[in-house]
Amino acid sequence: MSSSPALLALDAHYQAMPPVAAMRMRILGYDGARLRLHAPLAQHVNDKGCAFGGSLISLLTLASWGLVTLRVQEAGLDADVFVADSDVRYLAPLFADIEAEARLDDGGSWDTFVGTLRERGRARATLLAEVALPDGRPATTCRARYVAILRR
Amino acid sequence: MSSSPALLALDAHYQAMPPVAAMRMRILGYDGARLRLHAPLAQHVNDKGCAFGGSLISLLTLASWGLVTLRVQEAGLDADVFVADSDVRYLAPLFADIEAEARLDDGGSWDTFVGTLRERGRARATLLAEVALPDGRPATTCRARYVAILRR
Repeated sequence: MSSSPALLALDAHYQAMPPVAAMRMRILGYDGARLRLHAPLAQHVNDKGCAFGGSLISLLTLASWGLVTLRVQEAGLDADVFVADSDVRYLAPLFADIEAEARLDDGGSWDTFVGTLRERGRARATLLAEVALPDGRPATTCRARYVAILRR
Repeated sequence: MSSSPALLALDAHYQAMPPVAAMRMRILGYDGARLRLHAPLAQHVNDKGCAFGGSLISLLTLASWGLVTLRVQEAGLDADVFVADSDVRYLAPLFADIEAEARLDDGGSWDTFVGTLRERGRARATLLAEVALPDGRPATTCRARYVAILRR
């Protein structure tokens, strides 16, 4: 994991949530556009020996939520970030560690999102997140909408 | 929790999965049509003091998955049950313990599901699951499709 102050703060934020601390997840990387998270399969295995659906969607949700949170902070704003809805597709079972990557949906703009949040006190963003199989094909995909609301 | 052999077996099945054991969930009730699960808020609290989105969808997924599993077993069949996709709406924050209830979608039929599984070796079912606020209004809803495949 990069040791930038923003990522260290995000990691501390994640680990302060009991259900997230129990996931033993960590931040793999962030390049401004994509946030990648990792969780070990052993902690997330289901009755069939592959990754539990609830763990997959949890990591996908955390990746998208974390990316929105980072972009809000980089804009110098202080906001709560909520998930509003999500559409998840479980395409193939994953028999390996879980790596989730989130990015803004095609057609979305962080500039628009930040501008709206600054002007109106709240803004929405649609995120795409994916967990890939070891060969690169998608195991699970998630399209979700997030709402940020400025703190008073 | 009822101590019927089927529910005890389902609970053992749940608790054998490390990510589920970490949730400290338990079965609240089952009447043939609805399965209800419970998890304590303290184990699932997020950065805003309410229930973490990943925990909500995990419990909703487990309730629906458990209901399909019970109906397969009651039919005397042995099948793996997979979640195929889910559509989740987070309608209001929950500042209380999580209780998830799952049932078959309107228009679905367990007789049709079991008949198809018996004849073709696989069948699909659409489940509705909901976590309610203490006043009864919905906090989170989930519509998800499950696939059961007979074991050889």
